[in-house]
Amino acid sequence: MSATIAAATDVTRQLARWIVSCRRSDIPAEVQREGVRTFFNWTGCAVGGARHETVDRALQAVTPFSGQATSTVIGRGERLDALHGALLNGISSHVLDYDDTHLKTIIHPAGPVDSALLAVAETRPVSGADLLHAQIIGVEVECRIGNAVYPEHYDRGWHITGTAGVFGAAAAIGKLIGLDEQQLTWALGIAATQSSGLREMFGTMCKSFHPGRAAQNGALAAFLAEAGFDSSERGIEAPRGFANVLSTKQDYSEILDGLGERWEASLNSYKPFACGIVIHPTIDGCIQFRQELGDRVNAIASVELTTHPLVLELTGKTEPRTGLEGKFSVYHSAAAALLRGDGSPTAFTDEAVNDPKLVELRRKVRAIADPGCREDEVTIEIAFADGQLLRKHVAHAIGSLDRPLSDEQLETKFHRQASSVIGEEASRRLMDVAWSLPELRDAGEVARCSVPQKVRTAAAGG
Amino acid sequence: MSATIAAATDVTRQLARWIVSCRRSDIPAEVQREGVRTFFNWTGCAVGGARHETVDRALQAVTPFSGQATSTVIGRGERLDALHGALLNGISSHVLDYDDTHLKTIIHPAGPVDSALLAVAETRPVSGADLLHAQIIGVEVECRIGNAVYPEHYDRGWHITGTAGVFGAAAAIGKLIGLDEQQLTWALGIAATQSSGLREMFGTMCKSFHPGRAAQNGALAAFLAEAGFDSSERGIEAPRGFANVLSTKQDYSEILDGLGERWEASLNSYKPFACGIVIHPTIDGCIQFRQELGDRVNAIASVELTTHPLVLELTGKTEPRTGLEGKFSVYHSAAAALLRGDGSPTAFTDEAVNDPKLVELRRKVRAIADPGCREDEVTIEIAFADGQLLRKHVAHAIGSLDRPLSDEQLETKFHRQASSVIGEEASRRLMDVAWSLPELRDAGEVARCSVPQKVRTAAAGG
Repeated sequence: MSATIAAATDVTRQLARWIVSCRRSDIPAEVQREGVRTFFNWTGCAVGGARHETVDRALQAVTPFSGQATSTVIGRGERLDALHGALLNGISSHVLDYDDTHLKTIIHPAGPVDSALLAVAETRPVSGADLLHAQIIGVEVECRIGNAVYPEHYDRGWHITGTAGVFGAAAAIGKLIGLDEQQLTWALGIAATQSSGLREMFGTMCKSFHPGRAAQNGALAAFLAEAGFDSSERGIEAPRGFANVLSTKQDYSEILDGLGERWEASLNSYKPFACGIVIHPTIDGCIQFRQELGDRVNAIASVELTTHPLVLELTGKTEPRTGLEGKFSVYHSAAAALLRGDGSPTAFTDEAVNDPKLVELRRKVRAIADPGCREDEVTIEIAFADGQLLRKHVAHAIGSLDRPLSDEQLETKFHRQASSVIGEEASRRLMDVAWSLPELRDAGEVARCSVPQKVRTAAAGG
Repeated sequence: MSATIAAATDVTRQLARWIVSCRRSDIPAEVQREGVRTFFNWTGCAVGGARHETVDRALQAVTPFSGQATSTVIGRGERLDALHGALLNGISSHVLDYDDTHLKTIIHPAGPVDSALLAVAETRPVSGADLLHAQIIGVEVECRIGNAVYPEHYDRGWHITGTAGVFGAAAAIGKLIGLDEQQLTWALGIAATQSSGLREMFGTMCKSFHPGRAAQNGALAAFLAEAGFDSSERGIEAPRGFANVLSTKQDYSEILDGLGERWEASLNSYKPFACGIVIHPTIDGCIQFRQELGDRVNAIASVELTTHPLVLELTGKTEPRTGLEGKFSVYHSAAAALLRGDGSPTAFTDEAVNDPKLVELRRKVRAIADPGCREDEVTIEIAFADGQLLRKHVAHAIGSLDRPLSDEQLETKFHRQASSVIGEEASRRLMDVAWSLPELRDAGEVARCSVPQKVRTAAAGG
């Protein structure tokens, strides 16, 4: 206990010191490998979401204010200044709820961090290895800060991907641009005082705004600190700092213990389905039913799900009206998985949510919260009109740490998303470039390769 | 009670409806008059702070990312895009802690609102009357939202000028650009999910960053909503909305009751001294002592202050090292007022805080928190080496609602700040233009008139 209390006097500074001192060679090979997978998955998701109307509208609003056009809007080709680029890429990478998850905290780590890094990488020479190094540090920082306050902080109503993500972006950009310990201490403080994002916004365009703003605001924090703009040096741990004001739990040992030894960044997971992680066991099991039952799914009389309580708390919308709202309805998700075998972005369109057959089936779904059920677990019971009863227990959902997506599955996920936005050939080329991140001399190449073929052709022709 | 509970279902929408429907002719003449005083005082403060190193550093950091150079950095002449202009002007207007105060909530109302409005007014035709109208609405909205959560929200550690200010900026810009009820409901929601700013940052450059970011983020919220970017429609009152997540008090009647009848915007006050409002009674009384005692102040043996408890909580720094920290030291403030008769920005420089004579006297100052003492009240007891004892009771500090600054005193305050930054002649001309706000065909004229004479001459010559 006394160690924790002593540490609470300079948590922010100790964290800053580690960020500055951590060399790439200090990072174990398997953590670096997971870092490449994190980056690869983020790239595919940012391309996959790039044509969503949420991105269109944000782009329309910010374009008149954008500065020097240095940074590519991933998957599109418009160029914005690096801060607005970070915002837009953060939105598109999260808008389909298809990105990645640090399961201990439900933080989606890559959005705030990689959205900032890649946008800034187009403004100065940045190698792929340096970007990867900064990404791993940024992810480590945001997940550790998340651990320190989760779950109380999240339960209070904070969208932790936004509130912790801003620290990750500040740390990553701070590392990338070479801030010293004092500047990084300030950058974390400037991040702390911008930490925001309410869970109330789930189901609206503001949900993906949160990782976008975390990326933009964290990058701004680093650039301000670089210019000597100061802040409290105890932004995280002070009596009126981030952890005390935004949470009732403050476990600073989660931030400082074993830094550089145990790696939260290696615990990232990648979503197999385009919605909140807590419904994944249900979708997994329902897709298995679909494969086993074929057309007999049309004769289902009722579905009963026994799930972790968070499922109802987070995804309890019984009558979603839009695709976005559908991501927060375990009922719709189960129906789409059973009838269409689908948990990808096409299962969460306005069309799907309003399909009369899906609406009919989702109204037959009941969910029961069981505190004894783990988050990656579900029991599904299906009853048919003829009295037949089927039961399936999913012990660990696909995509969980016990059943991680393979590289090949990550490629399938990437290509399914990206090919429809930028074309088959561009998607394949982008996958190659993204996998080769550690060898890239210029990390900005990834952003430029994400531009749809027809946009590049038009630009060359014009 | 039932009225409040019923209202809590659509507080955000009702507020949005009022913002849209409120006509300028609905606003009583005395409220409009106070609105002009609010704008005038803000203009002087923004010019007065324009050369502070906090502004220099922020400008250095954001310039590489700034877009179309539409909006003047007040008191300087650089031009940024409107969102960055809002940020910079918000910083400079608050950096000297010399601006204005809504005494019920300690919100500094003009910073978030006018910093956004004037920056945007340089991007499109805006009359002075329309800017004034939008300012009054913005100030009304932020102060009412502040009332709904104060003091619990502030006590928890939130810098309410940032957290409530972002709503004021969103409302003001939303009104200015003509958002409809639906869009304004979204704008308030997008503001809610960006609400941030920690009191931990007091005494650092981040304190003035808060109103700057509130201005910038509130403006962004309005522009996003204009583009159809949606949010929760219950950003303020939802179970996981602003009021519940950031406060333990939620009194929605403070937001909705008597809208358009009782005007919080008419309750603004203007700081006679360049520091936290809670020390003003002390400085007021000490300057009176200085005037009465002359050089005998050099023989003071001890000073005892009996004050409102917030004085020690907010301004209890015993050993400030910088001018900024001096603003949070009632001890330094008392010493500067007694020895120099000064409570203006020159009392809060690094030089003043480290002046050996002031340091010696501030160490003789003791402050006692008395819960029976009002915030604008103090009792000062001075003891001399020869045993003489003097006592002074300040019932209402100058600048409080009971002793408001006259227009002439506002001019003196304005000119003292502005003339040293932009020159005597430019300051006088700017005062004329600021007073004439309601008649200006182009409100942007105020921003352009704030540019120092020598910068304008150089631009014309170059």
